[in-house]
Amino acid sequence: MHDFGAILIVSGPSGAGKSSLIKAAKEQIGDFYFSISTTTRAPRKGERDGIDYFFVDKKTFERDIKAGDFLEYAQVHGNYYGTSLKPVKKALKAGKLVIFDIDVQGHAIARERMGDLITSVFVTTPSLSELERRLKSRGTDDGEIVRKRIQNALVEIEYMTAYDFLIINDDFEKALDSFIAVAKAARLKKGRKQTLSFINRWRES
Amino acid sequence: MHDFGAILIVSGPSGAGKSSLIKAAKEQIGDFYFSISTTTRAPRKGERDGIDYFFVDKKTFERDIKAGDFLEYAQVHGNYYGTSLKPVKKALKAGKLVIFDIDVQGHAIARERMGDLITSVFVTTPSLSELERRLKSRGTDDGEIVRKRIQNALVEIEYMTAYDFLIINDDFEKALDSFIAVAKAARLKKGRKQTLSFINRWRES
Repeated sequence: MHDFGAILIVSGPSGAGKSSLIKAAKEQIGDFYFSISTTTRAPRKGERDGIDYFFVDKKTFERDIKAGDFLEYAQVHGNYYGTSLKPVKKALKAGKLVIFDIDVQGHAIARERMGDLITSVFVTTPSLSELERRLKSRGTDDGEIVRKRIQNALVEIEYMTAYDFLIINDDFEKALDSFIAVAKAARLKKGRKQTLSFINRWRES
Repeated sequence: MHDFGAILIVSGPSGAGKSSLIKAAKEQIGDFYFSISTTTRAPRKGERDGIDYFFVDKKTFERDIKAGDFLEYAQVHGNYYGTSLKPVKKALKAGKLVIFDIDVQGHAIARERMGDLITSVFVTTPSLSELERRLKSRGTDDGEIVRKRIQNALVEIEYMTAYDFLIINDDFEKALDSFIAVAKAARLKKGRKQTLSFINRWRES
């Protein structure tokens, strides 16, 4: 089969441990492209442009929306977040697994546009109170932001049924083992076009 | 979350290596129930009733169909093959992963009846000629049966797009690693009912 890539979408409330899982799994899931979001929000302390996010102003973001340059975008907490299509297409053509850390809106839109390439996993804490505890203890957000994240989590959790797999991040090592399995499986997802072309070649060889 | 089980469906042409993969993965994917099919075909040399298959006569099989006792059944090579629902339900309630080795017709029917619990994987050889070579070299089937299996494979391969994941069994160790990942991921599939009940408890705890 032509070595075309596939997509893994990771969603779940802020504070559930998505970033930690992706970071910890890096060494064990082979070559992948981690999709960097573009955002209009201000960089947090230590965040670097082009590594954590592409930081742009609102005007630039809205111009790129009009140009159809985004796989998906959404407004969260008053800021734009989105994913440029160009590096994603390049990575897919190179046969890479593309990993997205996006919200439930982004997932829904991506499903519509390239659902046959997507495996999705929802990562959550075992409970709302545990999420609140983690958000408060990481100390990067003030009380108002924590409240917004909690509010948002209560909405996001409702979309859990739209995901292929669910990881309850209670014991981190177990959650990591699960996440690695999902990422490896995601590589075995073949788009409709690639599958049909494989079938044709299979019958004739 | 209440420890409810999930389903992994494994399909693909006879000779592609499904049984070998399931057997080799056994030690590494935790507790599971391997669904034993019921069939009206004659036992092959060394096959035992209740271990390889439940071997029954046509009359018994057709009576159980009428009683709604089968998750799915199909006629292949002139014989009935089917899966009784009772042990499956019991295993799911016990929180087990249920693994099915069934054909593309069985997969389609199972999807309709309990699709929200199912992860599916299609296992195939890299080519039709390699499948033929493997079927001939295993020496369990005569020429006529091999021809029928090849004919059947040409139909089955067309259904590949209906599966979540694809394993091309070229290098067995790589295929095994992939299969283990898919089986571990399949455990993270939660049925709609279980997910909705988790969401309710999550919000309140």
